[in-house]
Amino acid sequence: MSEITVIALDAMGGDNAPGEMVKGAVDALGREQDIKVYLLGKEDIVNAELQKYTYDKNRLEVVNTTEVIETAEPPVNAIRRKKDSSIVVGMKMVKEGKADAFVSAGSSGAILVGGQVIVGRIKGVERPPLASLIPTEKGVALLIDCGANVDARASHLVQFAKMGSIYMEHVIGIKSPKVGIVNIGAEEEKGNALVKETFPLLKEEKELNFIGSVEAREIPHGQADVIVTEAFSGNVILKLYEGVGAVLISKVKEGLMSTLRSKIGALLIKPALKSTLKSFDASEYGGAPLLGLNGLVVKTHGSSKAKEVSNTLIQCVTFKKQKINEKIRESIQSEQKSAE
Amino acid sequence: MSEITVIALDAMGGDNAPGEMVKGAVDALGREQDIKVYLLGKEDIVNAELQKYTYDKNRLEVVNTTEVIETAEPPVNAIRRKKDSSIVVGMKMVKEGKADAFVSAGSSGAILVGGQVIVGRIKGVERPPLASLIPTEKGVALLIDCGANVDARASHLVQFAKMGSIYMEHVIGIKSPKVGIVNIGAEEEKGNALVKETFPLLKEEKELNFIGSVEAREIPHGQADVIVTEAFSGNVILKLYEGVGAVLISKVKEGLMSTLRSKIGALLIKPALKSTLKSFDASEYGGAPLLGLNGLVVKTHGSSKAKEVSNTLIQCVTFKKQKINEKIRESIQSEQKSAE
Repeated sequence: MSEITVIALDAMGGDNAPGEMVKGAVDALGREQDIKVYLLGKEDIVNAELQKYTYDKNRLEVVNTTEVIETAEPPVNAIRRKKDSSIVVGMKMVKEGKADAFVSAGSSGAILVGGQVIVGRIKGVERPPLASLIPTEKGVALLIDCGANVDARASHLVQFAKMGSIYMEHVIGIKSPKVGIVNIGAEEEKGNALVKETFPLLKEEKELNFIGSVEAREIPHGQADVIVTEAFSGNVILKLYEGVGAVLISKVKEGLMSTLRSKIGALLIKPALKSTLKSFDASEYGGAPLLGLNGLVVKTHGSSKAKEVSNTLIQCVTFKKQKINEKIRESIQSEQKSAE
Repeated sequence: MSEITVIALDAMGGDNAPGEMVKGAVDALGREQDIKVYLLGKEDIVNAELQKYTYDKNRLEVVNTTEVIETAEPPVNAIRRKKDSSIVVGMKMVKEGKADAFVSAGSSGAILVGGQVIVGRIKGVERPPLASLIPTEKGVALLIDCGANVDARASHLVQFAKMGSIYMEHVIGIKSPKVGIVNIGAEEEKGNALVKETFPLLKEEKELNFIGSVEAREIPHGQADVIVTEAFSGNVILKLYEGVGAVLISKVKEGLMSTLRSKIGALLIKPALKSTLKSFDASEYGGAPLLGLNGLVVKTHGSSKAKEVSNTLIQCVTFKKQKINEKIRESIQSEQKSAE
């Protein structure tokens, strides 16, 4: 008998909650047998959505939570005060072993704080990074840290590289993933103080396939599989990816609509264009896990729809089956033994 | 009689030197009367290129320089040792008042070091930033600093904001330009230590039209006219802009060529698409000035062609006519007086 992955899903978080969250959960149940989902939210609202679908009631249950943390709320306060919010209840289920993972499209701040405060870190992990899959010309790369720890130190970045490598190898299936550090030049002597301090440390790590500096220009070309950086530039990269993409695509559409000739052309190219641009769409790749916690916490896009939710739930199953947290624990603890 | 702007142009720098440099210089002469260009490089090579054109010999002269600084050379050494390189000779012409500006597509490192060491800073300017014009949905924005000073301090960023505002208002012609600081959230309390320290200082500056934080996602939409950041994230933004753009456009092209139907469509949309994508092409906007020096030094893209060179030379004329350096001097020195 296969092991079941139990996931607490925040039905109240994100721009499209609860509709798309519920739809994503039902979809995941159809795709994957070894999964059980708890939908956390206001019972009556969630049940009203659920009535639209037929699904296996043994594998999908609603947990009533009466409070909602808003995106604008200061996260530390929100976590402390709203004990009956979907985020706090979901995190506690992970903490207490009632769920393997918590997935939410809600307040990033509350998810980051809750992950550290409620779920807690794996022993030895200094700072849990947020890791996001981003599309590249060759497929997909992991950007780590993309928003959890600003003003990080070199030792944190080394741990990010290790955790990111484990994730890419065992969840995404890239053998011996290439690790690069975001830098403003290709040479080792380039960079700011943090990168200069981190570079030789990464070079020393025999278990990593460290390929050196990666200039931001190379990231979309897929030069590295694991892209290590501190959270400020990581978040800038993640957001700019979306921004440049959105503006360019709207420019292309504007061009297509500009003349009669181009409008006719647009009709002809539409199907082909749609399928190539789909490969550059972040929602194909699921949410961003907060790595290094005693359990799994995943943040999906605030704008995520059912497909992203469903993909994220399936990734949680792989995360558990591949024993990612055990592997992270081993990797971080062997580091600490060798330091003793 | 109008004043002449004298520009020393590095004929040996960049991937397309000397051909495109020479062509750009000849082109600028045709577009602008009040300009004189010195072409710096190996005389015989430069003259061989010049023979292809007819031009006003009073306004275009060759200065023979026997050495060339390569991109891979450590910049400080290169500047010190290669006294007869086009970069060192050009910088000295600016320093000695023989030229108003030096323009080069050569080694970024050598240009940054040479600007500070040879040309020198305006009194009171702590760190001269590299400022690059980037395309946005609404037109163009100035990204400052995009590569000169990593690990900058809050006081540097405030000066970047002032210099950038002056440039956008008087060279690009945007009245009361909106100044934003790159941040990873819209609220004042968000950000890393540097941004948190800089934010209130920018808010206090009455002469600036400070609009607060700008998330990277908003940059391509043209939310701010002057985008202030330290050089590490600034360089990441600049390079990622190019990288995401290049990959997306190649994805679109790939989509267009994927079926017979889409190939026919591609022929119809080509002219319209070309003109809209042109508005998102960095080479339309000229090079990146290193601001705050006793003179003007401009770095153009390593891959720059005649059009970018010509546009940059015309911008140098505006820079002089609009007395940008006098305005920077006034702004920085009034700050220092009020600090006394």
